[in-house]
Amino acid sequence: MSASDPQRDFDLIVIGGGSGGLAGAFRAAQHGARVALLEPHLLGGTCVNVGCVPKKAMWLAAEVAGRLRMARDLGFDVADSPSLDWPTFIAHRQRYIAGIHDSYRHRLDAAGIVLAPMRARFIDARTIECMDGVRLSASQILIATGGHPVRPDLPGAELGGVSDDFFQWTAAPARVAVVGGGYIGVELAGLLQALGSRVDLLVRGRLLDGFDVELVEQLAEDYRHAGVHIEFGHHLAAVECDGDGLRLRDRDGRLSEPYDRLLFATGRRANTASLDLAAAGVATDADGYVQVDERHATNVAGIHAVGDVTANLALTPVAIAAARRLMDRLYGGSSSVLDQRDIPTVTFSHPPLGKVGLTEAQARERHGDEVHVYRAGFRPMLHALANSPQRSLFKLVCVGAERQVVGLHLLGEAADEILQGYAVAIKRGITLDDLRETVAIHPTSAEEVVLMR
Amino acid sequence: MSASDPQRDFDLIVIGGGSGGLAGAFRAAQHGARVALLEPHLLGGTCVNVGCVPKKAMWLAAEVAGRLRMARDLGFDVADSPSLDWPTFIAHRQRYIAGIHDSYRHRLDAAGIVLAPMRARFIDARTIECMDGVRLSASQILIATGGHPVRPDLPGAELGGVSDDFFQWTAAPARVAVVGGGYIGVELAGLLQALGSRVDLLVRGRLLDGFDVELVEQLAEDYRHAGVHIEFGHHLAAVECDGDGLRLRDRDGRLSEPYDRLLFATGRRANTASLDLAAAGVATDADGYVQVDERHATNVAGIHAVGDVTANLALTPVAIAAARRLMDRLYGGSSSVLDQRDIPTVTFSHPPLGKVGLTEAQARERHGDEVHVYRAGFRPMLHALANSPQRSLFKLVCVGAERQVVGLHLLGEAADEILQGYAVAIKRGITLDDLRETVAIHPTSAEEVVLMR
Repeated sequence: MSASDPQRDFDLIVIGGGSGGLAGAFRAAQHGARVALLEPHLLGGTCVNVGCVPKKAMWLAAEVAGRLRMARDLGFDVADSPSLDWPTFIAHRQRYIAGIHDSYRHRLDAAGIVLAPMRARFIDARTIECMDGVRLSASQILIATGGHPVRPDLPGAELGGVSDDFFQWTAAPARVAVVGGGYIGVELAGLLQALGSRVDLLVRGRLLDGFDVELVEQLAEDYRHAGVHIEFGHHLAAVECDGDGLRLRDRDGRLSEPYDRLLFATGRRANTASLDLAAAGVATDADGYVQVDERHATNVAGIHAVGDVTANLALTPVAIAAARRLMDRLYGGSSSVLDQRDIPTVTFSHPPLGKVGLTEAQARERHGDEVHVYRAGFRPMLHALANSPQRSLFKLVCVGAERQVVGLHLLGEAADEILQGYAVAIKRGITLDDLRETVAIHPTSAEEVVLMR
Repeated sequence: MSASDPQRDFDLIVIGGGSGGLAGAFRAAQHGARVALLEPHLLGGTCVNVGCVPKKAMWLAAEVAGRLRMARDLGFDVADSPSLDWPTFIAHRQRYIAGIHDSYRHRLDAAGIVLAPMRARFIDARTIECMDGVRLSASQILIATGGHPVRPDLPGAELGGVSDDFFQWTAAPARVAVVGGGYIGVELAGLLQALGSRVDLLVRGRLLDGFDVELVEQLAEDYRHAGVHIEFGHHLAAVECDGDGLRLRDRDGRLSEPYDRLLFATGRRANTASLDLAAAGVATDADGYVQVDERHATNVAGIHAVGDVTANLALTPVAIAAARRLMDRLYGGSSSVLDQRDIPTVTFSHPPLGKVGLTEAQARERHGDEVHVYRAGFRPMLHALANSPQRSLFKLVCVGAERQVVGLHLLGEAADEILQGYAVAIKRGITLDDLRETVAIHPTSAEEVVLMR
């Protein structure tokens, strides 16, 4: 076949069928581009298969477990600490995910996007070779292959799992160690504890770096109340296995109590190994991420990259928004670039923790004495009724005499749902007065933000 | 004692210790005014004692009951339809309310506000007589006595209760009729069904007049799924009692099946009966509400009124906001008046239903063809996992080429918490593009608003 065969020559080749790749493919097709999408694994990438979606499902199960514990205190006739049958729940979870796969396949068909379910590598800056030897060419190529979790480089690391492995588990281990204080570690530790494990969370530096310190401290307190043991300043040196289970040796030689399972949440790496980027001359940075500018262009004309394969914020909605804007520029005559400021994000901890804009520390660094902070600390009504110790802490960061809102930080029941609307308002630009001028919805947690004094 | 006795002569007398009265008293005291507060009953008025607060507590119990029903389907080992021991729960509820009373009393003491726990009546436009005969005077008087639910005027109406009576109940009746399609009727019907009653909701005209018709229709469908029997076009003529219970006779003479309990949610009236408004010359309207202008002034200089004793929107946060602004004008040199547009409000149904701004019908009436409507209908993840039929329906009402957002309507899980932030944004003024420019928080229900296409 010749290179001009209509089945082999496309306007756009998207490598990777995760959220960013799919969003880019759909948007380009909407603009009339002929698109091929290469994805050797499951559609939806990390988010749908081993990230946001199954994670949120497990988080929801853990939240229901929390409700069950409160239900008894409230006066419902439920047994003490009801347990979850994981295989039943996982069947629901995977059915839900299969529904998303179906929906993607239907949408790809409807959009006329050619799906090649196979791995691919660059031949040159315009040509891709699929694993079956077929070569495809296009004037534009989007790299959206995502990333994957990695184990640390230390003796015995292979005895531990990563988040991908967690989603294969079919029961809550009795004793589990989670290594890593980022959002993945915090999320896994929280939901495992809620679902019946005894969890140790081992953190080298800070917990949830990038979130507001004050709220993170209170979350740590909530975790301790829930039974999670958090150890800070823990430097893992090796993992060992004996008859009782896995034991962690720290850099001072101390050996831990035994665990049934070990999870590493210590980092992720870009999926570039099989792409042969060098054949196209695409540059990566020192950490292996594909280098892109703010318009998601690589160093090679006609090749762009979005999502976790780049060093951009590793959030599904960011990859989606970036991919859509890129296609609007390539095929829709737009010049819109994704504004990377004021991107809201939530850690699905128990309770959830959300942020948009600057933390207090970031604001003080930039604006010094001009920073004004407002707080609301309260017990959500359900927790007060059930005598549960869980409190909410909301924090508003303002700047200047006008009290321009530059950051909002929410820890507590429903923070995950409350934040989005405020993120719209803050991106639009609001002052403390705009909050105060809005009538409260009573009684809610969300109203505490407009009632801050 | 003389009228100039410092204990008897105040800057401000507030009649009524509900949310509006308290907010006014506290704000005036902050501005340095000497304030007396007259409240013969419990501090906090309707909202704290027989309204928002205990209602939300019961709603929360009903939501937990819903979670328990889903828990079994999700794989938790809980019994089928666990039941609530009302006395246990009510002890929690009333403890919570007692905590609010304590907090108010401490704050009144701290603010130096004189609390007279008794009924009062006007002697003239500057003088109030307490039930013990003591007379107080002030240059400003605020009427904030609230309202109360009323039974319809028909034979046997005394056999039914009103919302105040509901809060005395100590068990879910087996069979209950709720008469009235306003938010109180919808809320009571929903939570009683969730807590184990078999509920008939009898509606004369529309359900939830003022909320978006499309969402109300879906809520009615949700109620039917939950087991609530809704009968529209029901005109009650009489209530009768026989050995089997209470029976309702409609205007065509048909007699209903028997009920164990009957609740009227058919209207409320202003609390003015004992005030002797005529002595001060304060005018009321045809429905008995104290007449006020947009600055909450009555027809008598120096006498204002806020809250449910007026015909204003009967919402606690509106009364509070109005009272605070009034005191800022009287004592703080402000000229700010409460903007009655874009006030968000939520019906605590199952699921909750919220609105801010114009409904689609209202927008079309004002803006005709310039109206553009966007919808998101979806199953929240937890309901999808549990195979629960409950769906969410969000609706955005925009106007003009700019797609100015003039209304947002949310039906579904967490709608009560999602709405507040969007209400801030909409009050500030946003277009559809402002929503689309905001990065989504994934996976949540709230993100569906910024993802509308």
